[in-house]
Amino acid sequence: MNVNTSVAPADSKSVRPEPAKGLWVPAATPFRSDLTIDFDRYFTHCKKLLADGAHGLAVLGTTSEALSLDLGERELVLERLIKTGIPASQLLPGTGACSIGDAVRLTRHAVSLGVRGVLLLPPFYYKGVSDAGLYAYVAEVIKRVNDKRLQLYLYNFPQMTTLPWSPDLVGLLIQDFPGVVVGLKDSSGDAEYLNTLLESYPGFAVFPSSESALLDAMRRGAAGCISATANTHVAMIRNLYDNWEDAANAENMHRACSAVRAAVQPFGWIPGVKAILSAREGTPDWNRTRPPLEALDTKRKAELLSAVAAAGG
Amino acid sequence: MNVNTSVAPADSKSVRPEPAKGLWVPAATPFRSDLTIDFDRYFTHCKKLLADGAHGLAVLGTTSEALSLDLGERELVLERLIKTGIPASQLLPGTGACSIGDAVRLTRHAVSLGVRGVLLLPPFYYKGVSDAGLYAYVAEVIKRVNDKRLQLYLYNFPQMTTLPWSPDLVGLLIQDFPGVVVGLKDSSGDAEYLNTLLESYPGFAVFPSSESALLDAMRRGAAGCISATANTHVAMIRNLYDNWEDAANAENMHRACSAVRAAVQPFGWIPGVKAILSAREGTPDWNRTRPPLEALDTKRKAELLSAVAAAGG
Repeated sequence: MNVNTSVAPADSKSVRPEPAKGLWVPAATPFRSDLTIDFDRYFTHCKKLLADGAHGLAVLGTTSEALSLDLGERELVLERLIKTGIPASQLLPGTGACSIGDAVRLTRHAVSLGVRGVLLLPPFYYKGVSDAGLYAYVAEVIKRVNDKRLQLYLYNFPQMTTLPWSPDLVGLLIQDFPGVVVGLKDSSGDAEYLNTLLESYPGFAVFPSSESALLDAMRRGAAGCISATANTHVAMIRNLYDNWEDAANAENMHRACSAVRAAVQPFGWIPGVKAILSAREGTPDWNRTRPPLEALDTKRKAELLSAVAAAGG
Repeated sequence: MNVNTSVAPADSKSVRPEPAKGLWVPAATPFRSDLTIDFDRYFTHCKKLLADGAHGLAVLGTTSEALSLDLGERELVLERLIKTGIPASQLLPGTGACSIGDAVRLTRHAVSLGVRGVLLLPPFYYKGVSDAGLYAYVAEVIKRVNDKRLQLYLYNFPQMTTLPWSPDLVGLLIQDFPGVVVGLKDSSGDAEYLNTLLESYPGFAVFPSSESALLDAMRRGAAGCISATANTHVAMIRNLYDNWEDAANAENMHRACSAVRAAVQPFGWIPGVKAILSAREGTPDWNRTRPPLEALDTKRKAELLSAVAAAGG
């Protein structure tokens, strides 16, 4: 396939920035006791993540419980984040939905606010969908959004969607939508898949979802990472990102990051990072999730905190 | 578990009808070439289904491509169906969504229009959710809809959602929400699951998704069926439903229905029923699906029509 992502079409070259790089945090979303979004706590968390080393925020992803927010809330979150002073250029929101119409609504809204790009899920209700069907879906979303500022990152999470973005389909989308389909977040944890993308499409901005994969992925040309545990350990992951070429120290940083991540994993990323934030900030409010997800109970939370401490996190 | 579905709470007894029974058709949704809903064709189809024997329409389900409609379209479809003269009491729409907020919006809207009930999907983005998490989700939806007219049918389709409504959870919901959680559509195709529900919860309105399962299910106390192929073979399925106790003929009717259904299955229910409607009405427009689903190509369509004809359909 003829892949050329670095050159946007001439008519839009001036308005499209380079694809994102670095550590983008899928910021967790705190809820009040009535399950509404606790915006004050959310803004504080987001600003602290940026102050502590995040290049940007991949808000409204899985870790953010975005699919537990209604469409209006997903729009409101972006509007209010920007209003509170977070630059739109540091936002990479998830705008995926099952229907083309809802995905277009969210994507158009996000792009109109000037976000750096959007992360797009496949239409995850259906199973066994062909690559041709997924291609048609993406093509229709891009056509209807109809905005030269659109930069789209595919969100690959087959454990949730059952619909992987196959390397062949990714190549076709890069080829047919140069400067628009510019990257991919890979939450599959499948090293072979990740390496195939990195080898096949140089210049395409691939973000593994784990700091454990970051060092190897950076050596192969990844753009950075978008990791749930960056909600709680942003500085150490940023340190690894900044120093991955430092042969003397990178492996140690990699091991430190991986140990913390492995400690959180058994508890589930969403309840896990929320429990750590709850303990750090001394408030039970951070524990809360929206149904159907469940917060860790007191015993599990204590086990998690011990495991993270033992891992040096 | 103390299961009592036939008696609604005293304060709402007067407004809650008995749970639905019979053949409810998950009406397919026709699209124009620009992928907008072809409302005229849709109304004609829906009215013909009722005239040909459907007790009602389980609109906005999987066969209707409801998850490919945006939220506003899902509301508009109901409003326009009722405006065109279809009684709201003959509508059993799907109002499921990933988030509580969107499910509440759709459910409240449908109930406000006076529909017979709603079919609720589990929050299908997440995987590995506990029964306690699903219970909390349903309880929150019911609490927020806050309408005594609400009659809720659980929509069990683990092949799409990965989240089955376990028999234990179903029992708990029947017990805790008497007169509200009144039925279930089972698209799992799992006879053991279906039979467990029928045996455990008499009076709970269970609808298998297949006319092939109808005869056996009626003998065990099912309420009827909600089948994709009722879009194309409503009269023969209604005949089976009406005569399931006719020992001399029911088995033959069952075999006839099952043969047609088996002929359609390999082609996929949605493209399959649309292709048959296209051939019958002499228009290519009925073939059309919204991405990511794909219409049958000419060759496959011809194969389907031959198979259905050979099956006597």
